Amino acid sequence: MSQSIKQLENRFHRLAQLDHASTFLSWDQMVMMPNAGNEPRSAALAELASLRHELLTAPEVGDWIGEAELALATDSSTTESDATTATAHATANATAHIREMKRSWHQAMALPAELVHAKVIAGSRCEHGWRTQRGNNDWAGFLENFRPVVALAREEAQCRQALAPERFATPYDALLDLHCTGDSQALISGVFAQLKQELPGLMQEVMERQASQSITSLEGSYPIAQQQALSESLMSMLGFDFESGRLDVSMHPFSTGVKGDQRITTRYRETDFADALQATAHETGHAAYESGLPDELQSFPVGRARNMCIHESQSLLFEKHLFLSRSFGKAMLEPLHRHLPATVAFDSDAIWMAQTRVKPSFIRVEADEVSYPLHVMLRYDIESALINGKMEADDIPEAWQASLQNYLGLSVSGNHALGCLQDIHWTDGAFGYFPSYTMGAVNAAQLGASFKQQHPEWQQQFAQGDVGFVRQWLSDNIWKHGCALESQQLMSAATGEGSDARHLLAHLRSRYLQDID
Amino acid sequence: MSQSIKQLENRFHRLAQLDHASTFLSWDQMVMMPNAGNEPRSAALAELASLRHELLTAPEVGDWIGEAELALATDSSTTESDATTATAHATANATAHIREMKRSWHQAMALPAELVHAKVIAGSRCEHGWRTQRGNNDWAGFLENFRPVVALAREEAQCRQALAPERFATPYDALLDLHCTGDSQALISGVFAQLKQELPGLMQEVMERQASQSITSLEGSYPIAQQQALSESLMSMLGFDFESGRLDVSMHPFSTGVKGDQRITTRYRETDFADALQATAHETGHAAYESGLPDELQSFPVGRARNMCIHESQSLLFEKHLFLSRSFGKAMLEPLHRHLPATVAFDSDAIWMAQTRVKPSFIRVEADEVSYPLHVMLRYDIESALINGKMEADDIPEAWQASLQNYLGLSVSGNHALGCLQDIHWTDGAFGYFPSYTMGAVNAAQLGASFKQQHPEWQQQFAQGDVGFVRQWLSDNIWKHGCALESQQLMSAATGEGSDARHLLAHLRSRYLQDID
Repeated sequence: MSQSIKQLENRFHRLAQLDHASTFLSWDQMVMMPNAGNEPRSAALAELASLRHELLTAPEVGDWIGEAELALATDSSTTESDATTATAHATANATAHIREMKRSWHQAMALPAELVHAKVIAGSRCEHGWRTQRGNNDWAGFLENFRPVVALAREEAQCRQALAPERFATPYDALLDLHCTGDSQALISGVFAQLKQELPGLMQEVMERQASQSITSLEGSYPIAQQQALSESLMSMLGFDFESGRLDVSMHPFSTGVKGDQRITTRYRETDFADALQATAHETGHAAYESGLPDELQSFPVGRARNMCIHESQSLLFEKHLFLSRSFGKAMLEPLHRHLPATVAFDSDAIWMAQTRVKPSFIRVEADEVSYPLHVMLRYDIESALINGKMEADDIPEAWQASLQNYLGLSVSGNHALGCLQDIHWTDGAFGYFPSYTMGAVNAAQLGASFKQQHPEWQQQFAQGDVGFVRQWLSDNIWKHGCALESQQLMSAATGEGSDARHLLAHLRSRYLQDID
Repeated sequence: MSQSIKQLENRFHRLAQLDHASTFLSWDQMVMMPNAGNEPRSAALAELASLRHELLTAPEVGDWIGEAELALATDSSTTESDATTATAHATANATAHIREMKRSWHQAMALPAELVHAKVIAGSRCEHGWRTQRGNNDWAGFLENFRPVVALAREEAQCRQALAPERFATPYDALLDLHCTGDSQALISGVFAQLKQELPGLMQEVMERQASQSITSLEGSYPIAQQQALSESLMSMLGFDFESGRLDVSMHPFSTGVKGDQRITTRYRETDFADALQATAHETGHAAYESGLPDELQSFPVGRARNMCIHESQSLLFEKHLFLSRSFGKAMLEPLHRHLPATVAFDSDAIWMAQTRVKPSFIRVEADEVSYPLHVMLRYDIESALINGKMEADDIPEAWQASLQNYLGLSVSGNHALGCLQDIHWTDGAFGYFPSYTMGAVNAAQLGASFKQQHPEWQQQFAQGDVGFVRQWLSDNIWKHGCALESQQLMSAATGEGSDARHLLAHLRSRYLQDID
């Protein structure tokens, strides 16, 4: 191994330890910290971020990367003549290793310090204002703060694009790279085109069909402590290891941690048990991916999760394809009745029917599996146009209303709290994140189709609560690869093709038009 | 302000943020973390410690300190002719500010990297072995690992002494400086001499007196959840603010955190409620001190707690002089009966009598208030002789037995688990810590005598659960000073004299021979 790679690895090892610190300090902030701790905690996190930035963008890092790339080129040309599979494999790994370190470095180098600073100021002002403006339906007030956020995001996108124009065809591509790394606007637009075309009709068809079905309400009184024990049971059934992680409560469910210490959260409502369970299953999927990443590469970018489109595919697989499958629902019945005696009146079909209602809604986070992607389409259209300079912030309400009518047949009638003021994402300039939700759903269905094809007995296994074969399949095909492959290579290696929406559509038709799992 | 002070402050601000990270990562490790998280957590903590060490010992820090000292000398000489109280005060503060930064820097600079590394290796081997050797009474096996620990601690003490010979008369003084900062071996030996002379006789007298008293056993069945609510009630009575901290459970109670976010722990036994409450009161005292430190100096050594002799005085004040006072016990009765219905049979005198039994024991952490200091005397004699080269590790069991007989009238009869293998402190070379327990008790009694003198109505106030005036007095006399004064200056400013054992002896005589509070 060349000296420069060794130096790079040492630096990235140090960065990984700072990331470890930020990860658990942030978890604590959201789950444990008392109110007055926020000010000192924010200061500590900001300082860790500065330190991380300094260490990653120090001049020597660029030198090391250049030398490492050169050494790699020399190595691969000298071994070319007598290449064996083993050395070719080693070279591919080394290439990915350096490529991903360079990607991290590029992402950190791209922005001048003043732009980073201006973004933080504009973002926190906008987010802070949004918290009250949303309730007051104050679009005009929000817009005031939001215009500079958009202007700075455009500037950011251009800076990032300029640093790697060979990878980014549009400015929006450069922001997608931060969340949907490797999945370009062109690719995502292609996948989404099919959904835009078929989902609205499918949704109508499902609603007409469900209109005649009679549904049992699951509402009741379910003590939180019982729900928590049930959530832990579900996690164990899904393969979560409580020696390597824990479940807590937070306002918005999330998953974080490191290999060996996965922290997930959910939240409970006394009158409903299904929501908390779905959130638990979802976050368990995120944790499963992280816990399955390659052991020996934890400190390095190449050992991390591929991107949010893959990450979300794992959580949605666990939520929608395992937990919410009709077969797995049979296995859930015993722990459900045991932990929540108030549910003994419900059988698994009644629960499944109640959990699979489809109805267009204003609020994305309350949407069902069928209509959810349409909420994402709407946001994707707007944010890509915004960042690429084809739309202004001022035009958002009109565009929102038009798309909402077009995709979901609804009208917000000027109530922006139900419309363009509902999400937090844009307030601090996180453009390029939304598409990962639906790319995740697309990938999840596609991966699901593959492992089901290879395990034709999957329904019997699910019905017995056995999902070990799914974890093994995901481990072999997704988790253990880390970032060795680009996202579409990863999907192709696992399923024989790049991300394709037809699997999601097939899954939805099967579940919602034929009542099959 | 000179440029060098500004640079020093920036560096110490950064160090404080790293300390914040280590503090809460360590809390999490002891309170929340699942088992498998230990390896990545230890790696992250080690890296943060390295980073801290590098930032503190970088060559520029020494330059800045030299320049800051020079600037200070110049400032004070130019203002000497027209000195006002205000400028004299500012100069005193600046002097302390630089003195304490220099002290931190000195402590970090003192040891060569190889010695630090050797210490970690030898310490963790010895501690790891101790965990089974203690149970197996394997002194010979322990000694094998412990000899190098002592050798390295002596080397450490000599290195530290060499760097500041004007401050350290003996090598042991240089280790005391890490925990009992500012309290020398000469000073501590003087304080302890009086205790050694009077405590054994006092203990006998108390035991003879108590032999004729009839005591109600407090044993019973006390649900943990009820005990926890009671602990929280006690904390609130003692002035703990749950917006700025929390109570959790850990194997050994401890206190940590930052201003605005104090984390304390206790532990519960189903059959006993008094132990958990005492631990809670104790840790609440530690937290009170930290939360009362000066706001504006949090990032700097001068804004920190003075030393462990003062810190322990605060925890022991809360535990022994507030919570365990006969008067405060009256105020505790209502919440006790409310939270733990199983205690309704006990009145406050019965509880107080049961909690103030005196009986010499082998195990320090189980010792009562009267005999506890004798356990510390024994350890102090041995560790000071060890570090100053007047005793060898091989001789510990014999010295232990002789002192135990002399101070407590007990014989371990070769059962080292009840003797020199009982404590964890020495296993990783933490010499110089033990004396802080009894210096804390001495200081607590002395501070207690002072605030009681100034508040003659204290018993009535305690009996009503009012301890606000104690907090105010401690805030004015101890907390707000941070490290502006050296420890004995601090005690003198608060009580009119340096640490003196006669107040502790007077307190014990009053409580245990006259049943007065």
